[in-house]
Order: sequence, then structure tokens, then C-alpha cells
Amino acid sequence: MAEVSLPAGTAFSGGVLALSGGVGGAKLCRGLAAVLAAEQLTIVANTGDDFDYWDLRICPDLDSVMYALADLNDEERGWGLRDETWRTLIAMRRLGGDEWFQIGDQDLATHMLRTKLMAAGETLSTATQRIATGLGICHTLLPMTEQPVATKVNTAQGWLDFQHYFVRDKCEPEVLDLRFEGVDSAELNPLVSQMLTDASLAAIVVCPSNPFVSIDPILSLPDCRRLLKASSAPVIAVSPIIAGRAVKGPAAKMMRELDMPATALAVAEYYGDLLDGFVLDEADAEYMDDIAAMGLAVCVAPSLMTDMESKISLAKEVLAFAASLRA
Amino acid sequence: MAEVSLPAGTAFSGGVLALSGGVGGAKLCRGLAAVLAAEQLTIVANTGDDFDYWDLRICPDLDSVMYALADLNDEERGWGLRDETWRTLIAMRRLGGDEWFQIGDQDLATHMLRTKLMAAGETLSTATQRIATGLGICHTLLPMTEQPVATKVNTAQGWLDFQHYFVRDKCEPEVLDLRFEGVDSAELNPLVSQMLTDASLAAIVVCPSNPFVSIDPILSLPDCRRLLKASSAPVIAVSPIIAGRAVKGPAAKMMRELDMPATALAVAEYYGDLLDGFVLDEADAEYMDDIAAMGLAVCVAPSLMTDMESKISLAKEVLAFAASLRA
Repeated sequence: MAEVSLPAGTAFSGGVLALSGGVGGAKLCRGLAAVLAAEQLTIVANTGDDFDYWDLRICPDLDSVMYALADLNDEERGWGLRDETWRTLIAMRRLGGDEWFQIGDQDLATHMLRTKLMAAGETLSTATQRIATGLGICHTLLPMTEQPVATKVNTAQGWLDFQHYFVRDKCEPEVLDLRFEGVDSAELNPLVSQMLTDASLAAIVVCPSNPFVSIDPILSLPDCRRLLKASSAPVIAVSPIIAGRAVKGPAAKMMRELDMPATALAVAEYYGDLLDGFVLDEADAEYMDDIAAMGLAVCVAPSLMTDMESKISLAKEVLAFAASLRA
Repeated sequence: MAEVSLPAGTAFSGGVLALSGGVGGAKLCRGLAAVLAAEQLTIVANTGDDFDYWDLRICPDLDSVMYALADLNDEERGWGLRDETWRTLIAMRRLGGDEWFQIGDQDLATHMLRTKLMAAGETLSTATQRIATGLGICHTLLPMTEQPVATKVNTAQGWLDFQHYFVRDKCEPEVLDLRFEGVDSAELNPLVSQMLTDASLAAIVVCPSNPFVSIDPILSLPDCRRLLKASSAPVIAVSPIIAGRAVKGPAAKMMRELDMPATALAVAEYYGDLLDGFVLDEADAEYMDDIAAMGLAVCVAPSLMTDMESKISLAKEVLAFAASLRA
């Protein structure tokens, strides 16, 4: 296994499993991929957001991570590909087709190829692998499960499909409850289960993604929490909330709607005893003692990832923290 | 029924059924649509070229006619849409996907919507109608049949799917034989059968399309030839061969390979007693007497359609010719 030199003379060796949702998680994954060797990093992405649109299988979190790792993602828009065009979408609009979800022309190729590969019998894992390889990605990216799991959001208007809530309705409805349809009969990706029981695993990183709709679907897969807790590797979460706000997406709004303060502390409490360590931003240093009092190791680090340097810097902090917990 | 004024004081009233393939046929259809009222013109297009690609149902002849009628076709390239872009194709290439057939970004919307509508249970006719309406087309465009028929080309390399011969292999293999898989169990579009037995039908126009791969699949549908001959309307073919050459496509090459001279006369002989009249270009006036000797009425007219004016002019000549045969 490769050894990675980290700040302050520390080093990191062994494998890393990162649990990720879309944008925020993808940023940290990009940092981790820049620091870790191909064989050291496995990213498992939430697939509860996956859905069918234009008869295509769309996997927003897998794609966000892929595009970030391939350095093709649009950082300004926050989703999809850079230098994207919308010609098919505009033509579809002319034909009167369904178009509440925006698919760019380049992005479309990903969904079309995935749909075609899966129609031909490939699993989501192998289809993902094929597309990731096409994009030049050498680290491993896995869907959390091969089986369909669909996140549903309960609101005043009733239960909504996640993308209806998230994209069509712009996260405006108040969230009352969430469920992950199909999760009880789905199986955690066997490659992930295998990693979790492997003694060479050196860190499990819960990326700064939405705890409710990005990380919880993964944690809700049968046996996932048990395997995480039983792993010899420390489980470290990076707070998606900085100074009471989500960098991107509805996490903070959702926390308030679910009667939780929108703070890094509340995130730590939400994950609770699943974790061994918690990384929070300097802006939230005030919560250090409370989190330590929960029995968690705490790492305070600049966690706003605005450029490649800050992604790499946070990745190194997380790895150094993990190494310190393992030592 | 609307009455259309034609040159030389003639007039045309009643319905027209046009049998069309792709490019050449689509040009005359555009001329006919410019001259005839919406309820006067029904175009039936060959679907033997239809195939699946990227898991989409692609209907090249229906699309060529639609795009021509909507004035969105690319006249220079000879197929597809004007101002087309190729972003999805390029992205697909990057992912290592299949890409021997070129689908433009705007064109893709047509195939996606058609595939989606048909997957939801619509017939090819109603899906075509939905798309054509979306493009602002008011004349009626019908597929020759609702059932799949697949043109196969026998060559020295064996039997090829039509699009493999036509696009992938650029019509290079010598054609030995043709067959239309599924045609015997397919049914001529019932709306076409109905028109053919309707006394108000005033003309049947076999467009200047490839006789072997564009028109023959239509004529090979059970009962089609019988209904055409039994119709009270005159059947008029417009020669796709001008001065020994096909304006576009492999018709002339195919004729030579099938041991037929590449002439307008040979086209007239090929259609034979199906026809009441034949329209040939001024460049081929030498064949007038031979064709008349076959018992066909003959009309000599400029038939090279290079612009809107020449399309309208040929359409009017054909309609005047039909009116004269009906009188």
C-alpha cells in the first residue's frame, strides 16, 4: 500500500472508504483522490436519488462524484458538466416533451450509456465502472447497492419522489419525514461489505453531504451500520454545516424542518455513536467541547472547499485525523 | 375539399396519397405540402430503414419527411436538422460508446420522445403524429405499417442490416439481393388502406425515392399493390433517376448492381403496370416514346429540386398531370 505524507510529519497508509452524496461529498472525494493512490480510495455513493427520466436511468450522486473526479464538473452551477450545452433539451421542449429536469447534451451521453449497459444486463456497479473508466477515473467508485432504492420525501402535499422535491419543487415544500423505498430488501454493495471487514481499511470517511438524503440511505442498508461500527477503521464524519449553513443544498433547511438546530453539533449528535471522530470548521470551534463530551475525537479544520487547494488541504486533514485515531 | 390552381389554367381537387422514402421523396413532399391544404395530403413513409441505436427507435425516412415539412432539414448535408450540434455524440465517443451512426443533439430529442411514447404503448403512427404536431406540421404523415419491417441487403459479405449497409459501410458493398424482414406478417397502415378505397382520392404519387429500398418495402406490404391498382386515383411515379444518376443516395449504383441500366426508363419498367403515369426529367425526354409504348401516360418536367421554387413547381406539374389523367 502506498504511504501518503501529510502535514506536521504525519503519514497515512491503508485503504479509505468514503461515503458520499453529490456536490459537497464530491468535492472532498476529489481532494481524497488527489492525495490517495488509485488502490487506496473507494467511494461509495448514495443511489437513493436515482430515478428514471426520458426513460433513462439517472444517478445524480454517482455522476456528481464521477464528474468531480474527472475534473469535468461545473463548479459554478454546482451540478453537471462544465461547458455544457442544452440542445437536446431545447429540441425536446419544442416537441412538447417532459422537461422539468435539465439534462445537458454531454451529460445525456452518460445516462444513455448507463441505461443501455444496464438494459444489456450489466449491474449498476459495472456500468459505473465502464463510464468512470471512459472518463479517465482510476479510483474506485461504487453505488451503495445494485438494487433500486428510492428516497421519498413527506411534505404537506404528501409523499414526493426525491427529484420532484429536490429539482421540480426546488426544495420548497417543508419536509416532515423521509423514507427509502426498497432499502430493506436491498443489499449493501458486496465490495463495500468486504472492505468493511478488511483489516487493511484505515479510514471510513462520511463526506460533508446531506445526512438525511445522502448519507442516511447508505446507512439504512441492512447491516451497514453494524459493519461500520465493527470495522477496525475509525469512522470520521465531516460536517456539511458550516456556521449554521449548508454550503449547498437543503441540509440546513431540512434540519430546521425536522426540529433540529442547523449546527455542526446537531450533525454530530445525529450520527451519534456511529462515529469515532468529527471534523468541523473553524467557524464552529465553539462546539468542540460538546462534541468531545459525546466521546468523539474532534478535529477543527478549514472545511469550506472553494478550490483545488482547499479540497486537498481538507482531505489531508481528514487523513491525518484518521491516522491519529488509528495510532 | 380545397381546390388548388395549377399552371395552364388547370386545377386540382381531392386527396393525394404520397409514397415516400427519405431525402428525394421528402423534397417533393415539401413541395406538395406547400401547394395542398392540410386535409388534402397524406404522406406514407417507408419504415424498412427503421432500427434501434443507443436503445432508441430511429425512423430515418419518417424523420427526413418531418424535418423537410417543418423546414428544419439540412439541405446541404442532405439529412438531419439544420444548425445541428454533436455534443452528445462527442461525449459518447469519450465514454467509449457505440457511435457509427451520427445522431445530432436536436435530432436526438425526436428519437428519445418517439422511443418513450412507444414504450408507453403508443403506436408508431400516434407517436409520429405527436412529434409532427410538435414541429408544427399540419399535413398527415403516416408510417407504412405499425409493425416492424427490416430491410436487409445481401452482399458479398452476406446479409447486412440496412443501416449497416447504408451508413456504416457507406453503400460500398455490391448489392446482390434485398428482402424486407417481417413484411409478410405486417399490415399496411389501415388509414392508408382506407384512403386507397376512398373515391375522393385524386392522386397517388410515388415520390422520387429509391425504388428498391424506399418504395418497394411499402409495395411489398400485403395487399398494397392490389389496393393501389384498384384505386380510382391514378398512380404516378416521379423518376428518382435524372440523366442516369440518382440525385442522392445509392439508387443508380444499386440498379447497375442489380443488372438494370441506371435510367428513368428502367425505373418505369421496374414499377411496370402498377403505374398510370410517369414523370421524368427534361434530360430524359428521349425515353418518352418507350415509356408511352408501355401504356403509361408520360409527363416531362424539370424534376431536379434544388430550392423551394423547384419543389413547388414539380409538385404542381405532378398534380396537373394527375388531374389530366383523372379527367
